[in-house]
Amino acid sequence: MKLTILKHWLNEAMQHVSKAINGKNSLPILSGIKMDVTAQGVTLTASDIDTTIQATIPAATEDGAQIVTVDEPGSVVLPAKLLVEMIKKLPKEEVHIETEVGFAALLKSGKTKINMVGMDPEEFPAVPALTEERSFTIAGSDIRDMIRETVFAVSTQETSPILTGVLWQLEPSKLTLLATDRHRLAQTAAEVGDGDNALIKFVVSGKMLTELNKVIADDSGDVEITATQSQVLFKVGRTRLYCRILDGTYPDTSKIIPTAFKSELVVSTKAINAAIDRAFLLAREEKTNIVRLETGEDNAVTVSSNSSGLGSVSEQLEAESITGEPVRISFNSKYMLDVLKVIDSEQLRIGFTGPMSPIIIKPVDGKDSLYLILPYRTTN
Amino acid sequence: MKLTILKHWLNEAMQHVSKAINGKNSLPILSGIKMDVTAQGVTLTASDIDTTIQATIPAATEDGAQIVTVDEPGSVVLPAKLLVEMIKKLPKEEVHIETEVGFAALLKSGKTKINMVGMDPEEFPAVPALTEERSFTIAGSDIRDMIRETVFAVSTQETSPILTGVLWQLEPSKLTLLATDRHRLAQTAAEVGDGDNALIKFVVSGKMLTELNKVIADDSGDVEITATQSQVLFKVGRTRLYCRILDGTYPDTSKIIPTAFKSELVVSTKAINAAIDRAFLLAREEKTNIVRLETGEDNAVTVSSNSSGLGSVSEQLEAESITGEPVRISFNSKYMLDVLKVIDSEQLRIGFTGPMSPIIIKPVDGKDSLYLILPYRTTN
Repeated sequence: MKLTILKHWLNEAMQHVSKAINGKNSLPILSGIKMDVTAQGVTLTASDIDTTIQATIPAATEDGAQIVTVDEPGSVVLPAKLLVEMIKKLPKEEVHIETEVGFAALLKSGKTKINMVGMDPEEFPAVPALTEERSFTIAGSDIRDMIRETVFAVSTQETSPILTGVLWQLEPSKLTLLATDRHRLAQTAAEVGDGDNALIKFVVSGKMLTELNKVIADDSGDVEITATQSQVLFKVGRTRLYCRILDGTYPDTSKIIPTAFKSELVVSTKAINAAIDRAFLLAREEKTNIVRLETGEDNAVTVSSNSSGLGSVSEQLEAESITGEPVRISFNSKYMLDVLKVIDSEQLRIGFTGPMSPIIIKPVDGKDSLYLILPYRTTN
Repeated sequence: MKLTILKHWLNEAMQHVSKAINGKNSLPILSGIKMDVTAQGVTLTASDIDTTIQATIPAATEDGAQIVTVDEPGSVVLPAKLLVEMIKKLPKEEVHIETEVGFAALLKSGKTKINMVGMDPEEFPAVPALTEERSFTIAGSDIRDMIRETVFAVSTQETSPILTGVLWQLEPSKLTLLATDRHRLAQTAAEVGDGDNALIKFVVSGKMLTELNKVIADDSGDVEITATQSQVLFKVGRTRLYCRILDGTYPDTSKIIPTAFKSELVVSTKAINAAIDRAFLLAREEKTNIVRLETGEDNAVTVSSNSSGLGSVSEQLEAESITGEPVRISFNSKYMLDVLKVIDSEQLRIGFTGPMSPIIIKPVDGKDSLYLILPYRTTN
């Protein structure tokens, strides 16, 4: 293997694939990045078994400008951490790489020479084969929003592995993402394609979706999503993320989401966020993060919390409208702040069906999202 | 105590004094900020015993614009962490504060009301009394540079408490700061005053100087420094930092600094920094961070390092000049990078007196600084 490649192309591809690497992995080969060089260009692959990321660098740009000059095709696995940091710091834009005996590689740039201990590319796990494919396409910016709007609600408890993932459901013309950790739930949906999609349903790790969101750039264009029985492939430009589908059955959450409310509140997202943010400063001193919300006369909403050691806070804000029965409810303010952070709508609607029933939060801008928080049982 | 104060003045003063608070302190009163209100304005004080920071907020600006309206003078101690974060997030610029029974305080801003559990101001330790004062004045930007140029070299080992501090020495017209952890040394000096200063010598905690540097803003003007037997006071604008002088005798380092060299090297700071930075990526994998430097023909300098598991790196750069005997030396690259980070000079001079003698680094821009690194004994 022998080639010359432009640093910034190599650096960008390496930044993407290195996100698959899990520092805690015990297989030495997975601490490396595999480099495959052909006349068409360079392919980089990194993996932690569950997730594999692959990025290709073409030999030339669409305008015909040379990116890679291949003197000799070949493959090698090089230490990822060293490679990623070293490439960034090389003195010149041109980087020369060639393999020597025993998987060793020589990198040259300007007057810098690096000998790297490499590993056998044959030992690197193969990229998952995708059979019985079902695919759909969605704009990169849409998928990025949808992941952001749901992924915060996944469980961090390894005791319910299925809940550490986000459920994806594709119906003929609609894609829904849903996450829950049993205390709260986040769900968002968007129109997809021309309405003749096959039904697709899978659960993928929330952590991996957070990494996927880092790979999707503003100019990434469409993301192509291909699902099989055990794997999902996300194609973003020249980068491919292969992700293992989580085993198990995702719980049916449709029955716990109330559709009719005893009371409804429409408020400014910014105003209620600021009030709960201040109440949280006291609430967090108690482990439960409890904040109380109460409605009063003339669209008044009172948000309050207290901490035995520090004191108490009480806030009033004016709702746009309050309908139905008066509300007096307690909830985990951290969960509410997580929701308010991802709602872009200027106003939001909160629905209540009683002090022990789920609280439902929805943006009023017409976006098809829904957030659920279980209230907290308090004595007062 | 009863007053109305503008949020951004209170916030700024609080950010400054809160830097004295040590979360690990076991005295509950020291988790608070003391607030003293008089007709002249508000004084805030925070302390961890060793360091006390005090900031004053005048009742009005120099132009006569009202900052504080005092309805009733008084004092109280309020929980620092809550106060600092809450003030920042208050909805309005006007903040009303009044004490109630039992040191409780009520804060109001817009429709936000906070009841805080306060503490007895009488229990708060008094600000150190300064007797037998000796003072000098130096520009804020100069003192900030001098601290930055030395503080990185203090020891982090609590077993030599005196070395966790920076030595300050004022001679008639010159101030010198010096820090060492026995493996390296940093020293910088500047002209001060009109040459009839009294001799002053003291050692203060490096950590506290790092905090002092955060208080000194670009427009802080002069810093007045007053020393007694046991305390130093730094006056920066309306903020005062009182700092305990470290007990013990600072070691005499004058004899270990060579003044004549067997070889001298003049190189570009940027070029040698980049080369050592890359060599460090491999060197850090071995605990000693060892990088080798070797001079050759035609002003060539070779920087190299290796890691048994990863490989090796070798770099060539061209020195501006090399005089004296050929050099072949090993050192801790982390220590060298720390030095290169604080040298603003475009070029630097490195002096060698043998493979086991201290390496001396100096900027060539005429600044009176000197850095020393002990070389590392290697077998090859």
